[in-house]
Amino acid sequence: MKIVIAGLGNIGGSFALAIKEKSTEHEVYAIDINRDSLKDAEKRGLIRKGYITPAEIIPEADLVIFSVYPMILKSLVEACSPYFKEGVLLTDVTGVKRNIINEIEPLLPEGADFIFGHPMAGRENRGLAFSSSDVFQSANYLLTPTERNKEDNIKKLSAFLKQIGFKNISSITPDFHDEVIGFTSQLAHVIAVSLINSDDTNRNTKSYTGDSYRDLTRITNINEKLWPELFIMNKDHLINHINGFKKELDRMTDAIEDDNAESMQEMMIEARRRYHELHNLDMSDWD
Amino acid sequence: MKIVIAGLGNIGGSFALAIKEKSTEHEVYAIDINRDSLKDAEKRGLIRKGYITPAEIIPEADLVIFSVYPMILKSLVEACSPYFKEGVLLTDVTGVKRNIINEIEPLLPEGADFIFGHPMAGRENRGLAFSSSDVFQSANYLLTPTERNKEDNIKKLSAFLKQIGFKNISSITPDFHDEVIGFTSQLAHVIAVSLINSDDTNRNTKSYTGDSYRDLTRITNINEKLWPELFIMNKDHLINHINGFKKELDRMTDAIEDDNAESMQEMMIEARRRYHELHNLDMSDWD
Repeated sequence: MKIVIAGLGNIGGSFALAIKEKSTEHEVYAIDINRDSLKDAEKRGLIRKGYITPAEIIPEADLVIFSVYPMILKSLVEACSPYFKEGVLLTDVTGVKRNIINEIEPLLPEGADFIFGHPMAGRENRGLAFSSSDVFQSANYLLTPTERNKEDNIKKLSAFLKQIGFKNISSITPDFHDEVIGFTSQLAHVIAVSLINSDDTNRNTKSYTGDSYRDLTRITNINEKLWPELFIMNKDHLINHINGFKKELDRMTDAIEDDNAESMQEMMIEARRRYHELHNLDMSDWD
Repeated sequence: MKIVIAGLGNIGGSFALAIKEKSTEHEVYAIDINRDSLKDAEKRGLIRKGYITPAEIIPEADLVIFSVYPMILKSLVEACSPYFKEGVLLTDVTGVKRNIINEIEPLLPEGADFIFGHPMAGRENRGLAFSSSDVFQSANYLLTPTERNKEDNIKKLSAFLKQIGFKNISSITPDFHDEVIGFTSQLAHVIAVSLINSDDTNRNTKSYTGDSYRDLTRITNINEKLWPELFIMNKDHLINHINGFKKELDRMTDAIEDDNAESMQEMMIEARRRYHELHNLDMSDWD
């Protein structure tokens, strides 16, 4: 396939790297507003050629991977839209789906098949310099097909994603995507940011941390240009998850205030049961 | 030194392993109520000999490392107390300090020097079978000396801890210990348990997790026989930290509800600054 990566940042760069490492039959091109990134990627052999304007390369693309911030996606698709080849396959990497799909689908010519997707992998660091194909290896990929999508194209895209290293490609509805990602990813980021920001900076906490605190704050190296948008677009589900979390936090707080060790024990046994389920462990492995 | 490990569970076993690997001049013995653990440790060469009753070995000990649950510590020290040799050095591994010190110090004969301590390392798994000397390597160790302790003994204990692999040995007050551990360790466990227990188990979340959720819930493989005790003994500091965390969580929730991207951005930039400080990174390394 002739593949165009539209937006050669961290995720776009990781796609280019993974394709280069895992396949030989694809020709990879890129469009980006940053000439230096394009030159750099050409020199490193990640792409055959980079372009500033869609008109020069989009007409040849069999697959376009839009890997830009959600805020920019709409205008980039609009800019590319006049040049899509009949039968072109399009995809994105955005962390929310309902809003994006509602915004993008009306812009598409009939002959373009946009299958929206979300790689469950990424680095907190921005930019091509931090791209890595490793993060894709054995990671999950979520596709959110709509009525517009052709079954054959979903299969084709899934096969391509497996080829470049992803393990499980799941197809789920856009609403379920936003609900579950609101929990596993967005709520986790809300909690981590709140935790590190509640630190008393006069305490010099870093001399007294063990693995727990470092684990819980790893994702606070957060991209503030991306996440507020994602939170706002998924507000209903995210607020719902925050409330569910707060309810559990209050249960634990009440038990501590009441010296209720038994109630805490029940919560901890349940948490441990869920931990073992998450990691496919047998409770008997443990004690 | 003749060292007696009193309580050959996970942490006690890790001490035995670390001493075996890192030194040759110490003789290590253990007391435990579990004959099988003692036999196993003897077979594996972790200890010279194990005993069920303190009377048989405590009189010979130069150093006793009490590595039992806080609830059991007091009665174990009482049982050992008649047999302490003049000048014996004692230490513990308990995760809270004020209560423990107040409980234990009045029981001690004058010739016994108990320096309370806390290795910032451990496994969620219980028992000797999960012991490992690796967890101690380059980990932090907190000592909380009191007026009873002799300066020479603090130096001697610190040197021993460095010898078996710990990196930074800090001396802090018992109250500061409980305040900072309430934040870095206890609050982290409260949050992780609350997060995993707020999961909707009908969702089959594990198919949709990335690294974030796995990181934030790693410590939910929690020992429910230990942690409720620790939370209750450190209630004042822990509740204070939970409230500080909730305040930050509410700030973020309000910003999401108000579509206030700017306010979220400020919180995220602050979180990122703190992340970089925690990991000794320069912000300019990043973007």
